[in-house]
Amino acid sequence: MKDAEQNIPDMMAEIGARARAAAAQLAFAPSSAKELALNAAADAVWAKRAEIIAANEKDMEFGRNKGLTDAMMDRLMLDEARIQGIVDGLRAVAGQDDPVGAVMSEWDRPTGLHIKRVRTPLGVIGVIYESRPNVTADAGALCLKAGNAVILRGGSESFHSSGAIHDCLQEGLRAAGLPEDAILRVPTRDRAAVAEMLRMTDHIDVIVPRGGKGLVGLVQREARVPVFAHLEGIVHVYVDKAADAQKAMDVVMNAKLRRTGICGAAECLLIHRDVADTLGTAVISALVDAGVRVHADETLSKIPGTLAATDEDWGKEYLDMDIAARIVDDVDGAIDHIRTYSSSHTECILTEDDATAERFFERVDSAILMRNASTQFADGGEFGMGAEIGIATGKMHARGPVGAEQLTSFKYIVEGDGTIRA
Amino acid sequence: MKDAEQNIPDMMAEIGARARAAAAQLAFAPSSAKELALNAAADAVWAKRAEIIAANEKDMEFGRNKGLTDAMMDRLMLDEARIQGIVDGLRAVAGQDDPVGAVMSEWDRPTGLHIKRVRTPLGVIGVIYESRPNVTADAGALCLKAGNAVILRGGSESFHSSGAIHDCLQEGLRAAGLPEDAILRVPTRDRAAVAEMLRMTDHIDVIVPRGGKGLVGLVQREARVPVFAHLEGIVHVYVDKAADAQKAMDVVMNAKLRRTGICGAAECLLIHRDVADTLGTAVISALVDAGVRVHADETLSKIPGTLAATDEDWGKEYLDMDIAARIVDDVDGAIDHIRTYSSSHTECILTEDDATAERFFERVDSAILMRNASTQFADGGEFGMGAEIGIATGKMHARGPVGAEQLTSFKYIVEGDGTIRA
Repeated sequence: MKDAEQNIPDMMAEIGARARAAAAQLAFAPSSAKELALNAAADAVWAKRAEIIAANEKDMEFGRNKGLTDAMMDRLMLDEARIQGIVDGLRAVAGQDDPVGAVMSEWDRPTGLHIKRVRTPLGVIGVIYESRPNVTADAGALCLKAGNAVILRGGSESFHSSGAIHDCLQEGLRAAGLPEDAILRVPTRDRAAVAEMLRMTDHIDVIVPRGGKGLVGLVQREARVPVFAHLEGIVHVYVDKAADAQKAMDVVMNAKLRRTGICGAAECLLIHRDVADTLGTAVISALVDAGVRVHADETLSKIPGTLAATDEDWGKEYLDMDIAARIVDDVDGAIDHIRTYSSSHTECILTEDDATAERFFERVDSAILMRNASTQFADGGEFGMGAEIGIATGKMHARGPVGAEQLTSFKYIVEGDGTIRA
Repeated sequence: MKDAEQNIPDMMAEIGARARAAAAQLAFAPSSAKELALNAAADAVWAKRAEIIAANEKDMEFGRNKGLTDAMMDRLMLDEARIQGIVDGLRAVAGQDDPVGAVMSEWDRPTGLHIKRVRTPLGVIGVIYESRPNVTADAGALCLKAGNAVILRGGSESFHSSGAIHDCLQEGLRAAGLPEDAILRVPTRDRAAVAEMLRMTDHIDVIVPRGGKGLVGLVQREARVPVFAHLEGIVHVYVDKAADAQKAMDVVMNAKLRRTGICGAAECLLIHRDVADTLGTAVISALVDAGVRVHADETLSKIPGTLAATDEDWGKEYLDMDIAARIVDDVDGAIDHIRTYSSSHTECILTEDDATAERFFERVDSAILMRNASTQFADGGEFGMGAEIGIATGKMHARGPVGAEQLTSFKYIVEGDGTIRA
């Protein structure tokens, strides 16, 4: 929907310039001010929960009229418990270490120079997301923590909820004496604003897309600004012939069933030919018994309760009570399958054999590789990084869980004493 | 010039696919094989120096016919001494540590997981460069060291020299049992190949442009593949009121005069108002005496021998016996000037005052910031990083000197013991 009379490129250029100016200030904002701003924002969100819920009501009505699915309506919905979650999230980021200014390494040179590599903010981050309104707070907080200005562009469904939360973030910034423009929000539902953001190379340093295939694909096709790619999680679990039966059973069930809707949920099971009749069958039967639709290859689909897989089942992200299953000849067969179908998010090997695990780790090039552990651990919090803005599946700059530290760059500080080069 | 009948997109797609396949192999190539390949390539370059010089003769003739400037002809020219330099460069990279597989950090989690962050190759790197044929060897070697496949696209002037050097690199790869396609070269002068490389997002992970403004600008405008930006070096030296006179004199003279044609050479002198008549005048007079054309602002141009600056002198990369000079009110004035005109490469402050230096370091966001040291140290070798492919001025992924380590990515290796998420 187009807001009448609005010149999107001009509006976005102005937002970009304001963000750039705020970023220059934020780059040297004290840690204490950033912490204060986030705690004050948390206070404001809690104090204004009634307004936020009222704003969310408008979005829910919009969503109902638009015919959103139940799952989408659920993602959109805010109640007091979810607002408490937003408040907790803001306080958690407030309490995290400030990455900016940290000395990553330092060394002396024979010339007498002392060199330090120091973390700096990236600059201006554009976050484009879909219906979950809490991303407004999460992304705004993480970007601020890392000293970046951020331009938030939420989905049109969460327009009012995001606006109400954004007001609280700016209240926090004001309370801390930080520029309000540190956290900006695109104040229109017009999709032309997204296209504009993707081209604003002068004003945005990196785009973080948070959303489904459609959004990520659009961003990857159209963006001229660098992108922290967040593809889907087509997560593979390989049960090697040297797998421990109990560990394999525990890990597969957890990787698939703990939560089916997250990007770290297992979507494809690869089973070594030698254990297909034994452990493989036991694991698949347990999945069937738990209510999972197992889309199995020709051999495995003889196991009662399974479905016959089609070509579309390989490389599919179900995010539901479904899993694909296939026999492979050995670890190299698993590696080949993963290299062909994976989205480079997270893969797991179940084996007691160190050499096999080593081969898997060396030859599979996904952001996160696991051994004998549930893929549901693919999460910044579980990694000990604090909050995350997502899991990057690209290889440039950020990879895996993207927390505050991954939202930084660095510079070199070189100190001499009148030192000249020969 | 268009090679007749050649379908560039098809040719480049084939090259890209071959590079991608080689990269998958290289990712787990042993360090010893990479070292062997580079030493064997060095042997081959020396053994075939006569052929390389003969190939270079053809390029020189082409260059003369094209009317290249003396400076460009000099960059193009290869003789036995320069070939020795190429050989030494290859051996130096061969002897460097292999960054791939290095554990960047590791930690335990309360869940029992052990997490490692491990360096991996980036994948396929596209290097687009201009007339210097030695870049063929330097860039090929560094990319290989970091386990990457590389697609080299040299300038049309160095077409035959680059080809002859490239043959030696592939000879080295064969000697080490590594895929020949690890180092590929675009075998046409057709410029359409460059445009194609910039769009090959499936086959190239990052583009490194090495060359002048024209090339870098083209790459930044057209590239859909991520780029390690290498802008010009518009290097500023700020002489603070608290500068030590002798250090300031030594550093300014070295920063401007040691070599004027490198990207770390000083191009603009900023002088604190309080020392304009004393130290500032002394430094500028010394530059004038050394034969430097000083393009000075209204006040400083009263110093004998200086020229009046025009607006074009601010933010200009002379790469010659020229420097701009301007008075600023204080360190904040210097910071403002730098933020406006700098290319974010290297800047220097001359001061004995720690708080002033701190403010400069905090508020100037260039890749390299120096204090009381010559900007001519802006170099990977001087930083102790070994060879470099250039100095990145962007903030994404690589920044400052780009050596083998900056040509890597990383992944997470997570080990459990049947560990599941609650």
